[in-house]
Order: sequence, then C-alpha cells, then structure tokens
Amino acid sequence: MVEMDAISVIRAKRDGHALTEAHIDWIIDAYTRGEVADEQMSALAMAVYLNGMDRAEIARWTAAMIASGERMDFGSLPRATADKHSTGGVGDKITLPLAPLVAACGAAVPQLSGRGLGHTGGTLDKLESIPGWRASLSNEEMLDVLRDVGSVICAAGDGLAPADKRLYALRDVTGTVESIPLIASSIMSKKIAEGTGSLVLDVKAGSGAFMKNLDDARELAATMVELGTDHGVRTVALLTDMSTPLGRTAGNALEVRESVEVLAGGGPADVVELTVALAREMLDGAGLGDADPAKALADGRAMDVWRRMIAAQGGDPDAPLPRAREQHVITAPSSGVLTRLDAYAVGLCAWRLGAGRARKEDPVQAGAGVELHARPGDRVLAGAPLMTLHTDTPETFSYAEAALAGAYEVGPSEAFEPSPLILDRIAPSA
Amino acid sequence: MVEMDAISVIRAKRDGHALTEAHIDWIIDAYTRGEVADEQMSALAMAVYLNGMDRAEIARWTAAMIASGERMDFGSLPRATADKHSTGGVGDKITLPLAPLVAACGAAVPQLSGRGLGHTGGTLDKLESIPGWRASLSNEEMLDVLRDVGSVICAAGDGLAPADKRLYALRDVTGTVESIPLIASSIMSKKIAEGTGSLVLDVKAGSGAFMKNLDDARELAATMVELGTDHGVRTVALLTDMSTPLGRTAGNALEVRESVEVLAGGGPADVVELTVALAREMLDGAGLGDADPAKALADGRAMDVWRRMIAAQGGDPDAPLPRAREQHVITAPSSGVLTRLDAYAVGLCAWRLGAGRARKEDPVQAGAGVELHARPGDRVLAGAPLMTLHTDTPETFSYAEAALAGAYEVGPSEAFEPSPLILDRIAPSA
Repeated sequence: MVEMDAISVIRAKRDGHALTEAHIDWIIDAYTRGEVADEQMSALAMAVYLNGMDRAEIARWTAAMIASGERMDFGSLPRATADKHSTGGVGDKITLPLAPLVAACGAAVPQLSGRGLGHTGGTLDKLESIPGWRASLSNEEMLDVLRDVGSVICAAGDGLAPADKRLYALRDVTGTVESIPLIASSIMSKKIAEGTGSLVLDVKAGSGAFMKNLDDARELAATMVELGTDHGVRTVALLTDMSTPLGRTAGNALEVRESVEVLAGGGPADVVELTVALAREMLDGAGLGDADPAKALADGRAMDVWRRMIAAQGGDPDAPLPRAREQHVITAPSSGVLTRLDAYAVGLCAWRLGAGRARKEDPVQAGAGVELHARPGDRVLAGAPLMTLHTDTPETFSYAEAALAGAYEVGPSEAFEPSPLILDRIAPSA
Repeated sequence: MVEMDAISVIRAKRDGHALTEAHIDWIIDAYTRGEVADEQMSALAMAVYLNGMDRAEIARWTAAMIASGERMDFGSLPRATADKHSTGGVGDKITLPLAPLVAACGAAVPQLSGRGLGHTGGTLDKLESIPGWRASLSNEEMLDVLRDVGSVICAAGDGLAPADKRLYALRDVTGTVESIPLIASSIMSKKIAEGTGSLVLDVKAGSGAFMKNLDDARELAATMVELGTDHGVRTVALLTDMSTPLGRTAGNALEVRESVEVLAGGGPADVVELTVALAREMLDGAGLGDADPAKALADGRAMDVWRRMIAAQGGDPDAPLPRAREQHVITAPSSGVLTRLDAYAVGLCAWRLGAGRARKEDPVQAGAGVELHARPGDRVLAGAPLMTLHTDTPETFSYAEAALAGAYEVGPSEAFEPSPLILDRIAPSA
C-alpha cells in the first residue's frame, strides 16, 4: 500500500507528468469519501485542464468514477439495450421522439437524463412541462417501465458515479468545465455505470455546443468512443452541427410540442433526419440493423410507445401543454433569405425568457422559449414574423431580445451556404 | 461598475490572458470577504502557477493584497526603519544577530517574523526557546520596544494583508506554493503593509531553499526588488547559497546559542559574513552607510541591544537554554575533507528530530536539531564526530538519520570545490 496525499497527486499533474493508476484510484476514492477537499480537487482539475491526460489516464479516471458508486444491470431484460447521449445544444429535443422510436423497433432504451444549466435545455425540464409527468423513478419502477413500454426517460439516481456528481458541480464553479478528458470521463462514467449494452453519442460542434470547433468535438468523440469500447459498450459517435438551433423551437413545452409533431410523422426536416439517423445507429448497436425507424415514425408505432411511456410515468399525453402568458414577435428586417441564425444567441434568449436556470435550485418556466418562423435557407419578407418569444415574465423581453443582436442575417439567396447536419461518424478502430 | 464573477476571472487566466486591474482588485477583495470560495481561488492559483502573471499583474495583485488589510506606519519614530526578509533556509538564524546589530548602528528594525513549516525553521520558534520570551505584541507594544531598544522581532498581526494569510494557507494544501508571482506578491504585500522604509531580501538558492536553482532565485529576487521599489520601499536583494546549511546548527535553541556566539564576536565565519553583509545593505537603505557593523559586532554594542530586546519581550537573556534529553553522534566514515553536506537533508533530519512541525498546530521541541562538527572544506578523521543529533524523542533517531543517507561525502581535498556564500546582488535598475 503506497502512502498517498493530495498534494503529491496535484504536483505530478501540475508538473506535466502522467498520473499513475494508484494516484487516480486513490484521489477519486478519497474525494468521494471527503478526505480530499474541494479546493484540492479544483486545483487538480485546473492542472488537468491545462496539462491534459493521456488515454490511459482518462480510462483509469473513468473506471475510478464508475467504481465510486453502484452499477445498474439490464441483463434481466429480454431486449438488447441501446442508449444515446448528446453533448447538448439549442433546441435539441431529439431524445423525446428517439427513445420511443427505438423502442418501437425492438430495443430497450433506458435513457437517464439531466436538467438544463445555462443556455442548453434539459430533457427532464422539457418532459416536466407535460401535466403529471414525473422524472424520479426507483430502479424497480424504471425496470418496470422498460419492460412494459420498451423505453424510459428518467433522472439518474444518486448512486451512479457519485464522484462525478460532486466533481461536475465543482468544475461548474471553477472554470474547469471545457476540458476534453474531464468531459469524456464525466459522460462515460455515468453511461457505463448505467449498464447499457450499446451507446450512440451525438457530439455537437458549433456556437450552441460545448465544443465550438469541429476538431475539439472530434477529439471528444474519439475519446468517448474508445472509453466505451474499452469498457465493453458498443459505442459510436455522430458529429453534428450546432451552429444553428435544431428544429423550430427552443424551450420546454415548445419542444415537447415539436417532438409530438415528429412522432405524428411531421415536424422539421432536420429533427426528423437526426432522429432517424441516431435511431439507425442505436438499432445497429443493439443488433437490430434490419429495423426501419423511418417507417416506425411514419406509421404511428413510435407515437404509440411515446403515449404509453408518458402515461407510465404519470403524465397525460392528451393534456394541453402549458403556454406562456405573453408573446413578443420579432419581424424580419428586410426581404430575402435567412442566411444565418446563431444557436448560442437563441439559447441565451430562451434562457433569459425563463426556459433555463442560472442556478441548480432555480425553477424553469414550462411555456417560455423561442419559436422560429424561419430557419437558415428559408425566404422571409420584410416585416413578417421571424421569431416569437414566449414568457410568463414580459419584463424579460428586452433583455432576451438583446441576446439576438447580430445573431441573424437576411441577405440574397447566394449568400446562404447550406451545411450538412451530420458532419462525421466516429466508430471504434477495428 | 463592471459586473464581475469568479469564473470569468479564472477563465481569463486559464486561457492565458493577463488579468485586468479590475479583475485583480475584485477577486482579492471578494476572496477576503468570503464571496469567492476557496475552491475557486485554488483553481485560479493553479492557473497562475501554470500560465504566470506579468509584472503589471503582479504589482496590482500585491497592491490588492495590501489593500485587504491595515498598513502600519513607523513615521513617528526618530530613526529610519530597515527590514530584512529571507526566503528561508536550513540553519538560517541570521535575523537573530542581524536585527540588534543594525539597531546598534542607528536604524530602527521592525522585524515581523513567522513560524517554521516543513524543513526550514521559523525565527519565532527559535526565539521561543528562550525562557519567558513572547512573540505576540500589540502594535503599541511593538512601537514601544522599537523606540526603547531599536529593534523588535515579533509575530505579524492578523491585520496585515489578510488576503495573503488566507491564500497562503490555501496554496499550502493545493500544490501551488512554488510560483514566483505568488511567492513574490505574498512576501512583498506583508513587507510593504508593515510600513518599513527600506528592505533587504536574502533570496536563497540551492537544495535547502524554496528555489533550487539560481535562475529561479534571480527571477524571484528581481520581481520582489521591482515590487518594493514601485511601492516606494528602497529594496535590494542578495542571492545567497543554500546548498549547505548556514553555520553549525539547525534547530531552535541550538541556533539561538550560535547566534549569541556571533553577537559575542565569535561564531561560524559564514554566519558572520552574511550577517555583516546584510547589515551593510540595511544600513545603506536607511541612509546610514557610514556605520561599521563589523565593529558593532566586535565591540559588544550589538550584544547589548540583543539583551535589551530579549528582556523587553519577557525573555531572560541569562537563562540557560533548553537542551534535548538525548544525543546521537554520527561519525566520519573515513579520513579526509568533508566535500559536500546537503542542506535539505540536514533540514529534514532536524525536522524529523522534532525541531520543526508537520502541521501549523503542532508544537516544536526547543532542544531538538542537528549540530555540525564539520562544514564543507573542513578536515575530518575516520571515527571522529561529524554531527550530533539532538532530540527529546530518541525513537526518531533512526528515521532522522535516514534523511542523511547520501547527503555528505568525505574525500581528498582536491575534491572540494569552495563556492561563494553571496552569489549576486540585485538592486533596482536606475
């Protein structure tokens, strides 16, 4: 047994050395037990941020975080499990249609999700706008819904990777969030502890994403694919564009409404495209490569699973969704084509309207958010509605609208350069 | 008034930018008030450690730490004030003979000192081995002793640079001590707040010092000289060797005894050399360049001030000093010349014997330490005493002796390369 102390571990990383397996096992365990203080872990996190971790360190760090808590096991289910994780973006409601769609095609989808913080919304916040729906299930309830319906979307319990939970909260207040080794290990420790058999990652790049540029997103994706593969989880990543919002809504109930449109066979083309592409990857991972998710969306089978899934968690799929009390319309400044609409600005605008929270304990407004009447490439007419802002607190309109300054442009059609939604696919090297 | 938050300041330094004056003023003030948490400050300290601060940032950081507390003022004294700071080394008892010597030559010496932590001893710990002597004085008592005696050595009050006090304790547990910007601003904020008119820095380089190599020591010295000068304090630094211990003792009462020998006109040549050299610099800084400190040491005037200074703080200068209960002699392995004796090893040995503390709240043993019967360059005979280890806890002998493994060598006289004690002098550029 080697004698360990936090300062030696911090110094090793500070001085640019790789941490040993003993270092990593000890510090994650000691931090979970409270023996290593927050101020020590934050100094280490900053040293990791600036000096990095190599693949072996990231793998061990992830394993130590998994070992800090319990692991779930879906081995008793008759279906193969498939899970998806998105690194988060503006208007990213894909989980809502995707989970029931993949279940409709035969896989089991245990989707543990989170709440939003900052300019990206959280899947649980969105679903909570459905009257009666509840996010917290016991492990037994979760397994029951999975078995009966095929998919479940609920809050992760406190038992999964508790070291990550504590570390994530610490990184959030110490400027150490945007570190590829720390992001990759945080996401993958939870997903691996959750016990899924296969995993598809939607790694976003662009102004509305964590990773602003494609190279960083690619490195993050490759790191996570390797981590999952090393832990026996079939893992694939799609790199997708997040320079403009997904679909036509950013906000909680607004996004549920759009998701239901997709499940009804309609909805914005980009949301449908990404939902189907991710469904294909998930079904491939679950050994169901012959299934046809586009058909399951079109013929109502996915909608059927959605309705049963919402009802199984106390929600009423037929209840009217909440609407914000006040609306404010933003009109097009001139006629032409919408050549650009910045994702981050729209996310910030929705957040200021009340769709997101500044602190974990803040409530969110179910009806608040931004509705887009045009997407990049669409023609607009001077003075016609471009967006509608929704809120229960109209005093936020001017502050929210200020977020949109310089965020969109209307120009000649030649000025619009279409860009693909799915930028690349990262699979394990053979 | 600019809106500020800790994460923005941390991110700026993390991303390699210079902090603005507004950043620095805000974060030091908010940290002092408790609005910025320890985990945020430690992340910033690590970012500073790894990305550095430029001269303008260090100057502002120092000014902000001074502004976090009170400033002392010795303007009411009839004499010019002179102060010394050593970056710390093994056997560094120089403050003890130096303060009364400089006072005997006509300057006022307000020497605010600290306790030891780790392998270097603290001036207050050494003086507390004198029966009755007390380190804590009120500001009024301190001024009284200065006025009556000319020199005072006491603990710094809590009111000086409280931000530094809190930050230093934090750096100590987060692996962010050895940063030149943070060391320089920590030392100089206290010295400038203390209100001395001139300051001499003894910046040590070598195994027993904070700075192991001369280039780092030179950079630290230059940074501190510039900081002092910018704040109107006449500041000069000597770069001195700390590859081998100063004098023939490392330990509390052991070092007081040696200091009294120096004040009596005897003592080891290196201790006398450095004491007189630092005294000349301090007297120059105080406008007393004509004084002759070597004479004041030889003719007993410095000893007279010492006795009055000790008595003024409750100590009995005639009381026998404590001796450790047990001794262990280490003999020379062969005959020849002692060609090397490592300062860090001797400091660690003394610390393990009980002369130093592992934690701030630990007591120290007054009698513990290492007595050297030979210094590098001295002839030794096989089997004759080389060192005597002193402790009240003889169970520490073997652990303490283990610190000396490989720390000294006896060889032919040609193998000894004498090196100067005073390596360089750094004065403000004109």
